[in-house]
Amino acid sequence: MATLPSVSYSITVRLELDGHGSAVGSLTNAVEHVGGVITALDVASAGHERIRIDVTCAARDTDHAQAIVDALGAIEGVTVHKVSDRTFLMHLGGKIEMKSKVPLRNRDELSMAYTPGVARVSQAIAANPDDARRLTIKRNSVAVVTDGSAVLGLGNIGPQAAMPVMEGKAALFKRFADIDAWPIALDTQDVDEIVRTVQILAPGFGGINLEDISAPRCFEVEARLRDLLDIPVFHDDQHGTAIVVLAALRNALRVVGKNLSEVRIAMSGAGAAGTAILKLLMHAGAKDVIVCDIHGAVHSGRDDLDPNLAWIAENTNPEGYSGDLRGAVNGADVFIGVSAPNVLDGDDIAEMNDDSIIFALANPDPEVDPEVAHLHAAVVATGRSDYPNQINNVLVFPGVFRGLLDAQSDHVDSDMMVAAAKALADVVTDDELGPHYIIPSVFQPDLSGHVAAAVREAALREQERRNERRGRAEAAARADRGDAGIR
Amino acid sequence: MATLPSVSYSITVRLELDGHGSAVGSLTNAVEHVGGVITALDVASAGHERIRIDVTCAARDTDHAQAIVDALGAIEGVTVHKVSDRTFLMHLGGKIEMKSKVPLRNRDELSMAYTPGVARVSQAIAANPDDARRLTIKRNSVAVVTDGSAVLGLGNIGPQAAMPVMEGKAALFKRFADIDAWPIALDTQDVDEIVRTVQILAPGFGGINLEDISAPRCFEVEARLRDLLDIPVFHDDQHGTAIVVLAALRNALRVVGKNLSEVRIAMSGAGAAGTAILKLLMHAGAKDVIVCDIHGAVHSGRDDLDPNLAWIAENTNPEGYSGDLRGAVNGADVFIGVSAPNVLDGDDIAEMNDDSIIFALANPDPEVDPEVAHLHAAVVATGRSDYPNQINNVLVFPGVFRGLLDAQSDHVDSDMMVAAAKALADVVTDDELGPHYIIPSVFQPDLSGHVAAAVREAALREQERRNERRGRAEAAARADRGDAGIR
Repeated sequence: MATLPSVSYSITVRLELDGHGSAVGSLTNAVEHVGGVITALDVASAGHERIRIDVTCAARDTDHAQAIVDALGAIEGVTVHKVSDRTFLMHLGGKIEMKSKVPLRNRDELSMAYTPGVARVSQAIAANPDDARRLTIKRNSVAVVTDGSAVLGLGNIGPQAAMPVMEGKAALFKRFADIDAWPIALDTQDVDEIVRTVQILAPGFGGINLEDISAPRCFEVEARLRDLLDIPVFHDDQHGTAIVVLAALRNALRVVGKNLSEVRIAMSGAGAAGTAILKLLMHAGAKDVIVCDIHGAVHSGRDDLDPNLAWIAENTNPEGYSGDLRGAVNGADVFIGVSAPNVLDGDDIAEMNDDSIIFALANPDPEVDPEVAHLHAAVVATGRSDYPNQINNVLVFPGVFRGLLDAQSDHVDSDMMVAAAKALADVVTDDELGPHYIIPSVFQPDLSGHVAAAVREAALREQERRNERRGRAEAAARADRGDAGIR
Repeated sequence: MATLPSVSYSITVRLELDGHGSAVGSLTNAVEHVGGVITALDVASAGHERIRIDVTCAARDTDHAQAIVDALGAIEGVTVHKVSDRTFLMHLGGKIEMKSKVPLRNRDELSMAYTPGVARVSQAIAANPDDARRLTIKRNSVAVVTDGSAVLGLGNIGPQAAMPVMEGKAALFKRFADIDAWPIALDTQDVDEIVRTVQILAPGFGGINLEDISAPRCFEVEARLRDLLDIPVFHDDQHGTAIVVLAALRNALRVVGKNLSEVRIAMSGAGAAGTAILKLLMHAGAKDVIVCDIHGAVHSGRDDLDPNLAWIAENTNPEGYSGDLRGAVNGADVFIGVSAPNVLDGDDIAEMNDDSIIFALANPDPEVDPEVAHLHAAVVATGRSDYPNQINNVLVFPGVFRGLLDAQSDHVDSDMMVAAAKALADVVTDDELGPHYIIPSVFQPDLSGHVAAAVREAALREQERRNERRGRAEAAARADRGDAGIR
């Protein structure tokens, strides 16, 4: 399971070669010899004496990139000049920008978009606050909020260092769902302050996407903001992951012909993602689940349970299994890992039920080597892009927010998330479905449109039910008042 | 001084006329009869029986627009269909959007802009925080922050209703200085909460533009944020206005051949703008100023002075004049009003010194009718776009922030503001300068570039001075340590 060279570690090395160019043939060999891959070779200038060539190579990581540069420099007749890192070049000056949608070419346009004309628009919203969604960016904007406490696999690197990730997220929102997202990186990691800050900055946004906030604080931040705000609050690390896992599991179960309500599921990881996956699977009908953390199975007999683990102990593991992960996996139909690399091996997978399903989602190194797992399991999925069946949040969050914004929803609930998962799963047709294709590619055209439509419909259904309840309550109140009037 | 019809109150009325079209000739007359102006007349469809015409008219205000519609409907053979308001049409869905600057066409680009490639960029910033300005949008982004408490002349209309103004401001930042600004409308009007919220959301931004926050809270918000943050904090209603006034006054004094340090200045208005103008004029050399508020001249004998007025009393009006505005204006060289309509008349202006200068900036109705003021004063300026010499913040804030961002400045000070005012004033050449042209148009090409260059230089000079001071302090400390070592 060696990491392969990737363009995300791609470098461009400018070389100067002897004019007769005999060294050119050595370049590919030299790079391949140290395990790199040349993806492009551009002659920048050629003369009698010297040739300048830009060699672009994919490497595994920073050390590997250096090894490639060294290998190139060691070739006789080759001088290494500037080494550029394509990923850093792409990030210079940031990845997103603000654009005006209105022309401001002359005085007339200025006086409509700004003073004095804008005053009437502001007055209209002051008179009718619902107009904010018609006449401002609230209709289509999402705040991508982080405190920088749990950024990717990098940990607590703080708000400024989290910005490239948040900008990337904003770019994905636009690319896949035409949503205007703006990153807000918070200079606090105090739950009360995060909650109050997001509440205060919310009026201009139509939704809040929480991102890379560490557990268990993320649970409280999200729960409190959901209560306080009248726009949807979605913690992508939890719910985005949970929706993709549910979608992939639906299709994996289609492949092996089993039923969600009947399978035994063993989970590794009770953090933000694990807990959200657990809750959504249960909301969708899963009944037999054992969750393990670093101390083994979560059960009510343990004396180290925080509120989150206590909830898990109460609602899973009905037989009170108290052993380790290996024992929990033994005989299970499904393994879902959102924890740490290499906690299981091939023997463990062999002990599972027939036609077992493995979702080993730890990144970059899964809970079990996917190639080994394949020897014993029917379906294997990971979080990696270099294996089939990548569980990737990008499949979900753009469409979910698109649907919520289009429905002008004031919240997001589990029914909407299950609807999103079903829509995503159904994108894979019966003809396409197979052990190596349970989940579509993020580049499948209008994927987010399918998810958005399902979420929008679920949100509108919920609004209808609420209006009906309100209608009945008002009718009952009117009847009461009528009774009172008669007396 | 009647308000003229303006495109900012422009409507498009769809009419249906009798097929023979005899009514077409009446349209212009009917609109002009009620004081409107037809700016466009488009035939949407024409047949034997009926003609459809879209008539676009400029009106003075909402009532006037309705009067025009009524006048059109009263013409024989004319039926009024849909009436569209061009300003509202322009605002549908909001005025700004987020754009990705990086392509996300395929897996490779995704893996550089987002995971896994982005992780290295985040790590680089975690290791070297200064890289945030190189590798994220911080380099070019400004938060436009309001609490909706003093929006234009509309008062306390709240954060959502303030959004169209903030979006317009963001669009102007882009149009005139290529800055990526994003509006943040706060759901609190508590000073402590505003300060703490802005402090918490600051890491992703290179500057804070405070906007439409009411006095006196705006003073404290700004002062505290300047202390807390390592990026510039600029309250445009105060400092933007002050810079344009100083620029215009420099040029008006050039016109009449007087000197800022020698003229007597009478001011009306001691709010946010008035106070900022006063302080900047004094920083630039003004010495003889009397400020009046609604209770007359501000002097130390008054017992109703809040901290701001107390500062004014202490630092202006050395002779302790205690009369009203009219008395203060009598014999003055310059009148600057940022207060209320029609507080002075022609007789008051006539009592001023020869070659007097009038800046009557109350909007939309100035402190004195500019046409009347012209009879007695050498130079007259207002805040209105339909008179010469418009004092308009758009002349300043884009260039000021451009300069601050380019210098990576951690603050903005009065020297930089004076530099901005000088640069703006100097855009008007000696040949162009005259009583009706003391300030350039906002559409003058690269106006903000001139302002930006001056601010950038002033900021870099300040950084140099600071570095020199630090160098001397460190040298002294080294010397002390050296002395200690010898002993």
